[in-house]
Amino acid sequence: MHIHPMWDELPDINKQLSECILLIKEKTTIENKAIQDTIFQLLDSGGKLLRPAYFLLFSKLGDIKKQNHQQLIAAAASTEVLHLATLIHDDIIDDSVTRRGFETVQSQYGKDVAVYAGDLLLSVYFDLLADATESTEAIKLNALSMKRLLLGELEQKANTYNIDITFRQYLRSVKGKTAQLFELSCFEGAYWGKTSAEVIKKSSQIGHHIGIAFQMLDDILDYSQSSNILAKPVLEDVKQGVYSLPLILALQENKQAFIPLLSKKTEMTPADIDQVVSLIEHYQGLKKAHEIAAYYTKKALEIISQLPDCPEKEILYQLTQTLLNRNF
Amino acid sequence: MHIHPMWDELPDINKQLSECILLIKEKTTIENKAIQDTIFQLLDSGGKLLRPAYFLLFSKLGDIKKQNHQQLIAAAASTEVLHLATLIHDDIIDDSVTRRGFETVQSQYGKDVAVYAGDLLLSVYFDLLADATESTEAIKLNALSMKRLLLGELEQKANTYNIDITFRQYLRSVKGKTAQLFELSCFEGAYWGKTSAEVIKKSSQIGHHIGIAFQMLDDILDYSQSSNILAKPVLEDVKQGVYSLPLILALQENKQAFIPLLSKKTEMTPADIDQVVSLIEHYQGLKKAHEIAAYYTKKALEIISQLPDCPEKEILYQLTQTLLNRNF
Repeated sequence: MHIHPMWDELPDINKQLSECILLIKEKTTIENKAIQDTIFQLLDSGGKLLRPAYFLLFSKLGDIKKQNHQQLIAAAASTEVLHLATLIHDDIIDDSVTRRGFETVQSQYGKDVAVYAGDLLLSVYFDLLADATESTEAIKLNALSMKRLLLGELEQKANTYNIDITFRQYLRSVKGKTAQLFELSCFEGAYWGKTSAEVIKKSSQIGHHIGIAFQMLDDILDYSQSSNILAKPVLEDVKQGVYSLPLILALQENKQAFIPLLSKKTEMTPADIDQVVSLIEHYQGLKKAHEIAAYYTKKALEIISQLPDCPEKEILYQLTQTLLNRNF
Repeated sequence: MHIHPMWDELPDINKQLSECILLIKEKTTIENKAIQDTIFQLLDSGGKLLRPAYFLLFSKLGDIKKQNHQQLIAAAASTEVLHLATLIHDDIIDDSVTRRGFETVQSQYGKDVAVYAGDLLLSVYFDLLADATESTEAIKLNALSMKRLLLGELEQKANTYNIDITFRQYLRSVKGKTAQLFELSCFEGAYWGKTSAEVIKKSSQIGHHIGIAFQMLDDILDYSQSSNILAKPVLEDVKQGVYSLPLILALQENKQAFIPLLSKKTEMTPADIDQVVSLIEHYQGLKKAHEIAAYYTKKALEIISQLPDCPEKEILYQLTQTLLNRNF
């Protein structure tokens, strides 16, 4: 098992993330090896494990003597499990061929395996939560978070091929599909870690802003790297009518310039996409998107800096700064 | 809202089933009308609501004064929600065109709507459970039941196009994909209804046997009605390699007779299916399947008759007898 190298310098987090992955593997060990291998491969494919990592980092702001280690690991693991379930189901919808450089579950094994693998992970998600807590309020919060996450995906879906999509519509979708789970992960880390009421309150806000900035940066990187081979090419998204922040901002400058290209929909060629990327560059879509993402990053860092002073706070600050300023 | 006419003579059950449907609609009222309409249409399509009905019937064996009505309704509703979520996701996998005489979600709106509608129902499933209980043990039991249900579906999937499929393999799949949820529904009705320890124990066994007999009868009816237009034609199942009890039992008599037909797989024609049906008739597949189903029906009725005497017990007995001897 290889934990992403970004956690090499935090051996404690690295070790606990390994425990999370082991626990998820234990819960997804089943007789059907196609499904099991599918899930194990995804677990071993080098994802950043950001959601459980933020969970664990926030938990370290609390009193370790009051914590139940096994419950912490189960709850942290649950955040990654929900993330993976939605990844697998999203790939069915997008008809994606690759994810993290590997063939997607549905491309490799067919959509039936993908549907069941995602559903199985959703059962494991609530199984882990039931292990992690004696409070059905926590279960309720997770069920509602899962619902909001899906509503964010649906908002994105409802806006496909919409060249009039507004920033507000994009933001609503991002808040659901990405920020919701970052918010939940940070909050639950603070909550399960028995931190103070003040830290718990701030943890949600921090996660919310990190999630928004993270998704915006992801969308920016999709475009700025579009001349290389990408794990998940922007071409597919645009062909499927998923228009993200850089394109939305450029569209607002000159919609007419994009119409001849975007109206080809699934018939768009790589050359068409190159033209779209050039137009986005011309209308400063990437620059403007960077500015907006920077606003959310700044907010996240500001609230982190208001946390009580401790070494863990510095780690959280550094990590967030690095993550939201990456160019890879 | 129309509750299936089979509950007309039980006004109390009828009323509570209406409350369940209303609650599910309340929880699935969302901005995305395609998904909402999809779910509402399925809720209004006249399903038998057997799982919440058995839940409610078993709850009536308990002490009404100790019961929390709203929690009972939420828990009963959760059993139907899990059932509907699996129906929707199964139809993606089967590429089914119709369900209950209506076009399936994925055929009508595309597979993306079907994936999300199913996932949304799974979030509502745990949301309802969290409303219905203060015990995370109940949540755990549901997460594990959902997992076993999926493993049953996977067992069926693993046996597609397997002409050597054994009765034992078929039974394992049925226990997971159908009996598990009947068992859970009966058990939870007894449990939430505050019945005695003895009733709670028997409720699981009763649900288990009802579920098996119910699925077998369903599989039998698929074949015996195959000359008419069916809501879910047996032709599709056989083309997709799903071989159920009557065919399995006939295959055991003379595998060679079926090979020329079944080996055509998705190329099978309605005429081929007619031949398969004739062969099953010839090798007494339906008759033998009826005998096996009757064994499980008898077991279910036997255990029901051991319940403490009361009017509700008689209702349960009559209903189960009618359900498992139906020919429609």
